[in-house]
Order: sequence, then C-alpha cells, then structure tokens
Amino acid sequence: MLCSPDQHLQIGAILFPDMDQFDFTGPFEVLSRLPNSTFHVLGKDRSPVRDMKGLILTPEKTLAEAPQLDVLVVPGGPGQVQMMEDETVLSFIRQQSTGTKIVFSVCTGALIVAATRLLRGVKATTHWASFQFLEPLGIIPVDERVVVDGKFVSAAGVSSGIDGALRVASLLRGDSVAQEIQLYMQYAPEPPFNSGSPQSAPLHVLALAQKTGSELTKARAANIERLVADWQNGG
Amino acid sequence: MLCSPDQHLQIGAILFPDMDQFDFTGPFEVLSRLPNSTFHVLGKDRSPVRDMKGLILTPEKTLAEAPQLDVLVVPGGPGQVQMMEDETVLSFIRQQSTGTKIVFSVCTGALIVAATRLLRGVKATTHWASFQFLEPLGIIPVDERVVVDGKFVSAAGVSSGIDGALRVASLLRGDSVAQEIQLYMQYAPEPPFNSGSPQSAPLHVLALAQKTGSELTKARAANIERLVADWQNGG
Repeated sequence: MLCSPDQHLQIGAILFPDMDQFDFTGPFEVLSRLPNSTFHVLGKDRSPVRDMKGLILTPEKTLAEAPQLDVLVVPGGPGQVQMMEDETVLSFIRQQSTGTKIVFSVCTGALIVAATRLLRGVKATTHWASFQFLEPLGIIPVDERVVVDGKFVSAAGVSSGIDGALRVASLLRGDSVAQEIQLYMQYAPEPPFNSGSPQSAPLHVLALAQKTGSELTKARAANIERLVADWQNGG
Repeated sequence: MLCSPDQHLQIGAILFPDMDQFDFTGPFEVLSRLPNSTFHVLGKDRSPVRDMKGLILTPEKTLAEAPQLDVLVVPGGPGQVQMMEDETVLSFIRQQSTGTKIVFSVCTGALIVAATRLLRGVKATTHWASFQFLEPLGIIPVDERVVVDGKFVSAAGVSSGIDGALRVASLLRGDSVAQEIQLYMQYAPEPPFNSGSPQSAPLHVLALAQKTGSELTKARAANIERLVADWQNGG
C-alpha cells in the first residue's frame, strides 16, 4: 500500500452533528502531517456542527465537492445513529470506497461504514460499548485496538484513533514518516490510571460508565435491529 | 484541591491562530466530561481561528466575557510566539490566575504562561523541542510528562495534554471520575512505534524532526531572548 512520495494524497474526514470530536481531531493531528497531502474537512453542507459536548467544528467542503479520496476517515459518537440512516452519507462512503486506498473508521464510525454493507465478512473493531453490534452487522469482530483488513482500517474507542492514524500513516508513507509524527506529538503516553478498557478498569468504574452510556446503547441496539431486519427482508 | 460535587466548575481554554489544535482538543475531550461543569471556548474575539494545519476552531466567548475560571487551559503551537507578546492575553492569564484553582498549560502553552512571569521558581515542563527555554524564563525545568506545582499544571508536548487533563480531572473530582472518562475514551494507548520522545525515537527520526522544527525553534529562541533581556532591563 506504500505510495510513491511524489503521489499527492487526498485525505478527507466526514463531520456530523453529535459526533465525538476526538474521533476526528486525533486522526487530523496525525494525517494532516503526511508529506505531500491535502486534508479535506467534509460535511453534508458547510454549516458548522457541534460535537456531542458542544465543540463547534466547521467543514470546508461538502461531500459533493470532495475529490476522490485516498483515505476516508469516518468518526463516531452518538450522531452515528442518524448517519447510519442517512442515504447521502452512505452513498458517499460507497462511492468513495471504490477508489480509495483506505477507509478508516474510528470508534462507532465502524457502525456507519457497516450500514453501507461494505464490511460484510470484514474484520473490524469499534468502541468497547458497541462491540456486540459488529457481529449482527456481518462484521468479523476483532477485539484489538486497531484492525487492518484490506482497505478497511478500524480503530476501537475514541483515543485509539491516534494509534490507528499512525498505522495508516506508516502504511501509506512508511515507518519513518509515522515515527516523526509520533515524535512531534510527543506520543509516549502515560495514562495516570489503568482504566482505559473494560478489562482493566475498576469494576465500579465500569459499572458507572455502562450506566452513563445505557440510553445511547439502547438507541443503537434498536437502530441496528431495525437495519438488520430490513436487510433480511431484502432491503 | 478536591471540590465538592455540588460546586459548579468553570473551565476555559484560549484559542489563538496557529495553535496546535490537539493541545486543546485533548483537554477538551477530558474536561468537558467533568460532572457539574461548563467548558468555555475562549478567543480574543469570536472570530474562528485556524490551527497550524488549517483546522477551523471557533471561540464562543471573548476573554472579556469569561467568568472567573476554576481551570484555565493554555494550549501551545507556533502561534505561541505572538501570544507571548500579546498584552490582552497575558493580562487575562494574570487576572484569572488570582482566582483560579488550576492554570493548565499544554505543550508550548507553558511559554505563554511564563511570559506573564507567574512561573518564576515554579516547576514545569513543555514540548521536548522547547524544553531548553524553560530555565531562561525562570522556570525550574522538570523532564516529566505532567508536572504539578501548586496551582500550575503543565503537560509536555501535544498528546501529553490527555494525561495532564486526566490528572486535572482527578485533582478536582477524584480518581473515579477521571477513570470513568479514561474508560469512555478507551484510553489504553498502544503506539505502533516507540518513537514518542527524543530518548526513544530512532536517531534518524530525531534528526528529521529537529530539522523540520528548526526555523520555529530559532524564532522561539529570538523571541525569548528579547523578552528576557527586557526583563533584565527592568521591563
């Protein structure tokens, strides 16, 4: 997948309301630093959107204005539920994927890509709280932080987009380029707690997080059940 | 420093042109999730700014409109050079610091805070490529990822803002709250390379990164030399 340094890379990410900004800003930090590349910040239209915690993010091109991308980044967050039913977004992903080198989902962005049916039989991961939705969507679930299966790269929850983007950087431009970006970002993480996965978090913390997310998880489940039923009815 | 859960926390971050967006979006991701808190996205005015790689970020309040903050986040990036000479920004930091619980600098945001002279004799850190500037600015340099000295919390380069923000979260709201945020973010990092610090990066990668940053480092050095000379002349 390594590209000639002379080949200009077109990279793009889709912004949408109620996304998690960090699913996007992590990959932006890494991939906007690839030599000889352009990063397109895309939206259904150019109106600013608010992320799930209110941060204003502003697309600079509509989906229709995007060139054929080499890397398409699909972030997640609660707004993913609406995106899974948005034909404009799904057609855009389908269209782009025919010519793209990498479709890179972060967090529950994997569920949006899954709604296009492009991930049937593909190995992928997503945020831990949504991991159980991969199988019903026809994906082969792999409980790793970053999964690469052909042109599909998926990262687990939120901050794993950094690790995923560094993998994408190395796939396209080689290890030294990715390592220089990592050094610039001083990405030698030292989390102050060992609480970053359901396996490592203290039990009471896991219970708190599951309670906080329970309504959203229910909404996601209902949405995915409907979608899968629709597929089974030949939809 | 632990606050009563009933106490509403006012958190704010300063945006400026040519900042590094990740110095801000990392801490935003963590601190916008503190229970019973408001996160204010601040700018000199409300005009959108572009980060060093072109990402549009939009302040929602001017510095003058900000309430007394409990946590003031000061990000870095190349635009820090201008901010160190911006009296509006420096007075804002000085004023806020008299009533704030925490002044939290990320990356070269430490140099902006240093320009207020609030950090004389204080232990702090910054991005590895600017570490040598701490001492001339009267700071006690500590080569750690996150340094806490009284109300001043500093994180090293870019991505260390995540670790710093989790520390701030635990200082203000306790470990369980910070751990739940860490779990939500699935922050169990697995960098694909061991290249996140000058000590660990391959030598040729370090040389590349130093070359890439050399013009900016020179500009920073000239700026700081001028400032320190000014101080010595009683400025």
